[in-house]
Formats: sequence, structure tokens, C-alpha cells
Amino acid sequence: MNKKIILRQRPVGEPKFDDFELIEENIREPESNEVLIKTIYMSLDPYMRGRMNDAKSYAKAVEIGEEMEAGAVSQVIKSNSSKFKEGDFVEGRTGWQDNPTVNEKKLRLLDPNMAPLSTAIGVLGMPGTTAYVGMKNFAKPQKGETLVVSAASGAVGGTVGQIGKIHGCKVIGIAGNNEKCEYTKEVYGFDECINYKDPSFKESLKEVCKDGVDIYWENVGGSSFDAVMPLFNDFARIPVCGLISFYNLTSLKLDGPDRLPLLFRQLLTKRMMYKGFIVFDHYDQRQESIEEMSKWIKEGKLKYKEDFVEGLEKATEAFIGLLNGKNFGKLIVQINEDPTK
Amino acid sequence: MNKKIILRQRPVGEPKFDDFELIEENIREPESNEVLIKTIYMSLDPYMRGRMNDAKSYAKAVEIGEEMEAGAVSQVIKSNSSKFKEGDFVEGRTGWQDNPTVNEKKLRLLDPNMAPLSTAIGVLGMPGTTAYVGMKNFAKPQKGETLVVSAASGAVGGTVGQIGKIHGCKVIGIAGNNEKCEYTKEVYGFDECINYKDPSFKESLKEVCKDGVDIYWENVGGSSFDAVMPLFNDFARIPVCGLISFYNLTSLKLDGPDRLPLLFRQLLTKRMMYKGFIVFDHYDQRQESIEEMSKWIKEGKLKYKEDFVEGLEKATEAFIGLLNGKNFGKLIVQINEDPTK
Repeated sequence: MNKKIILRQRPVGEPKFDDFELIEENIREPESNEVLIKTIYMSLDPYMRGRMNDAKSYAKAVEIGEEMEAGAVSQVIKSNSSKFKEGDFVEGRTGWQDNPTVNEKKLRLLDPNMAPLSTAIGVLGMPGTTAYVGMKNFAKPQKGETLVVSAASGAVGGTVGQIGKIHGCKVIGIAGNNEKCEYTKEVYGFDECINYKDPSFKESLKEVCKDGVDIYWENVGGSSFDAVMPLFNDFARIPVCGLISFYNLTSLKLDGPDRLPLLFRQLLTKRMMYKGFIVFDHYDQRQESIEEMSKWIKEGKLKYKEDFVEGLEKATEAFIGLLNGKNFGKLIVQINEDPTK
Repeated sequence: MNKKIILRQRPVGEPKFDDFELIEENIREPESNEVLIKTIYMSLDPYMRGRMNDAKSYAKAVEIGEEMEAGAVSQVIKSNSSKFKEGDFVEGRTGWQDNPTVNEKKLRLLDPNMAPLSTAIGVLGMPGTTAYVGMKNFAKPQKGETLVVSAASGAVGGTVGQIGKIHGCKVIGIAGNNEKCEYTKEVYGFDECINYKDPSFKESLKEVCKDGVDIYWENVGGSSFDAVMPLFNDFARIPVCGLISFYNLTSLKLDGPDRLPLLFRQLLTKRMMYKGFIVFDHYDQRQESIEEMSKWIKEGKLKYKEDFVEGLEKATEAFIGLLNGKNFGKLIVQINEDPTK
């Protein structure tokens, strides 16, 4: 049987357990150019919240009754494709399910000797490539600049900050508890990290950004942005890659005053840049990203943390926790044993 | 005597006549590397409103008692500089005055045979270079894209739209009266131009932007932006070069709701770019701009309109009118006769 979690109804605000349903269906025999796979590691990422809404966005919404979307690392069980053979390890957007049958076009082959399989949905996968292409194309970090990263201990933020350090930046993280803050400093080498739940968050951030802020990596929105906004230097760059604090909002118009004029005036007088981006538009740089980041990992310049949850049936709870910052590092659902371990 | 207009006090909101004062002082003999010049054409531009405030900005404020800042075309009367001789025509930021003595570093030599002298503060000067470098570096117009330009009949906007046409864009102007709108269509070749004072402005704009908006050139802010915001396409670019509707505001926080979350969500899902810029940061491209634009003028692809006011004593009134959209084309104060005419 193929177990899968489908979207039962569209969440209003924070997702709830009964917005989802775990169902079983018969395994489908692979037709031409298809493979049957067994999911080993499944990725949970904040962007998935957007797919649950019916709103027009860069990707189409998950339909009611359809399995939730996710990238995953799997092993080929049965192949009707000339590209993959039984036993191959593959990565692709195969969804919240444990034994799906998918088209070969959805998959890329993984070399289990190059890096641990789980990294293909983490530091060497979508979140890592997000960090790499955003830093390279939009943040353009220069030696001596100050980089502030929100969601600093997360899959994207942790990598962004370390790429900043590799480029000689002073790196300041923002995270949701002291343990995460300590980790970014001790393991990732951030210069400082501030807990945004601390009552003196704004003052502390200002204190550690003595030379202002040249790059702000936006994963979050809301209070993180509000604290950074007064600190921007001339020519500051703000890659906007996620807005996790907004994802559960039911309205994007908040109590006033309206700060658009303030934002525009600052943008103009400080000649700043705001750039929204989605990693999928930049997959022409994916191979480069994987090669460069693998090198940094081997050289000990780039570290990563994975946060494993066991079993597909735990995915919903883990995802709800992710939106509330309960994960610590790249959140991964382990669905079957990893035969390379 | 040298007549000049000084800032008497900092305006609150809209500038008033008694914020300024016309005074006379003795002409100062040029010292080493200085020249005495006679002002012919003086430029009035919206950015000057910002210089009247004490707020921190990209350029320092004009001091109380100091002459207002402006670019101007002048003729050298007496030279103590090896770079300029008597009779030379020059352009530089020499202020609201008619017979100043200035350092040679402030000036560039003009060739009166290349183009009419007045263009050195217009289409071949600061406003024209603003349009050129903003289009080249940030708007990056592509054939078939839709470009919306606010303040469409102004010195910058009119040039931006024509550069858009040269690159094969569909160009939609926004201007403050029907005469200006007609002009941008008939003379500059814009495809459409909408009067923002028309009650059906938003609907009309939507109607003419059937394929959405790929580039919005922001000179204005406020209701122009509000009307364009819902129309942005994926990968839209918004060069922010002026915000004339904000310049007289005493607070930049307006009655709510706060639209920052809305702006950020759109920025992310549509992968947009907002880029504030100031032409002075890009003067390494000034010569290129002058050469390219001169060529377009000769080929009949680029037209320009100048709006002359006679006499330094009219500068204050003309400037107040500029902030209210009373000018029509590049606003120039003619202070002395142009001997090349």
C-alpha cells in the first residue's frame, strides 16, 4: 500500500490536524517512463503553507483531496524507466507519501558516496541552493559588511550566515530561543545572534549592528524586519526569500499606520534594493551550488544541522511546529530506514 | 552684484514664499582655480525639496542663510583657472544665484555646437542621465514588456517613456492633466497616458495594462503607486527615483492599514525588485548617456520639452508650482540671455 497525507480542507490561519488526512491506496504499477519508489527522507519547509491556500501564487495550490507537496529522497523499487534502475537513490518533489509511483522527469539521481543522502533535501538541496543563489545573485556580500539573517538556525538561514562568513562579513543572526542563538555562534561561527522573543530585542540588535546593516536576509517578516529597518546603511540589499511570520495570517493588511511611504523614502534616500526570489527560478545554478557547497563542507567551512522526525504520520504535527519555530535545523521526516547508514 | 536666493527657514510641509529670501552681495573676485560666472539657465527639480529639510539624507541639507542648490548653465566672465577661459560655457551645481564665483572643480565645459545649451541641465543633464542610467541598470526593458511611468510629462518621466519605446516596450504614462497626457502620446509616442486626477483613474489604468505591468518607474509615490500595485507581473522591476507626492508630507506614517506585509508578500510571490537610486552614484555612465541620448535626439527618436520661467526672482514661485505639477516639461529659470541664440 501507498500511505499518503492529503489536504482535506484549506486551513484558515494556523493549520490544524483535521485539515489533513492520512489515507492508504494500492500501490500503482509503474507505466512507461515511471518508477515506483520508497521514500526515505521527506522534507518539510515553510513554503508548503502557501500551497495550502487557493490564492494565486508562483506555484499552483495543492487541490483538496490531493497529497501534500514535498521534496524527498527515495530509493527505486521498480523501474519502467531507462534513466533509473532498481536500487538507485533519487530526489524529487514526490509529496507526503511513502510508496509513490512517479514519472522519471520528477527525479534526479543521487550519488550516496558524495554526501549523506539526507543532504539532498537540505544543505545540498532546495534550502541550501536557496541560500547559495540568493547570496550570489542578490545579497552580493562584500568583506567587512554586516549581514543580518532572520530564522538564523533554520535550513536556509544557517547556510546564509555561513556563506556570509566565508565572504568576510560580520554576521548577526536572529532566532527564537537562546539555544538556537548559541548554536549559530558556536557551530556556524556567527558573530552574534539575538533572540527576537527577548524584551530588549530591538536594542540588542542595534547594539550589535554598530556599523549598520548592509544585507538583511528576510526569511520571516514582522518583528524581525521592524527591528532591522531603522539600521539599514546606504546601498543595503534585502533578499526576500520567505515570510514565515505572515504565512498563517488571514489578512495582510495590519493595523496602521501605513508604513509604505516610510519604506519608499528610505529605499530612495539610501538607494536600497528589495528583491523577492524563489529558488526554482535559478536552478540553472543548482549544480554549481551543490559543487561549491560540497567543497565548503569538506573544508569544514560549512556545517549543517538536521532535525529528524520519525514516520509519515508525524508529518502534520511537525509541520505545524515548523511554522511556530519548534524545529531546530533542517526539518526532515524519516519515513523508511536509510540503507546507506 | 550677485543676486541669490537663500533658505531663510526650513519649510514645514509645502514651501512658502517667506521660507526664502532674495539677497544681493558683492561679486567676489575669483581666487586661484576659481571662475566668476554669469548664470544663463538654472534648473529646478523636485529633489531640491529634500535639501530644505534637516533630515539625514543622501546629500547634506542646505543650511539656513545659504543659497539654495541647483544645477545651472553659465558663461565664464572672469577666470583664474587653467581649465576655463572667459566666454566658455559651463555647467555645474552653482545654486540659485546669478553671478557666483565658484571653484573649477564644480564645472564641466559645454560645447554650444553639440546641442542647445539648456539641454545640459535637461535631457543631456541630470534628469536625462537619471532616466538613462535607471533604465539601463535597473528597469532593463525588454521588447513587448509593459512600462508604466509616473510624472510622465516631466523631465525624467518623458525621457524614460521614450527610452522604453526605443526598446520596444508598450509605454503607459500617468500625468496630472489631459494636456500633458495628450502630449506624451502625440509627441513622445506613448501608447497611452492616464490622468491620475480622473475619478476612473484606477480602472482606466487597469484597462490599458491588459497584460499587467513589468516595469513601473516611480517618480511620485502615493496614488500612482496604489493604482499600479495590483497590476504587477512576475519579475516586475520598480526603479524608485523620486517620490514627489511625499516631499511636502510632515509625517511618512499615514493612516492605516499597514500595507508592508502586503507589499512583501507580493514582492516574494512575484519575485519583484524595488531599487532606489540617485543619479549621482552613476556618473561614471554620464558621458555614455550624453552620447547615446544625443544620437537618439539626432535620429528623431528622443524629444524633449522645456518650460521656461524668466528671472531669478520667479524661482521660488516656480519651485512651489513644480511640487504641485504646474510645470509642463523640464522647468528652467532663464536668468540671463543665451548668447548662442
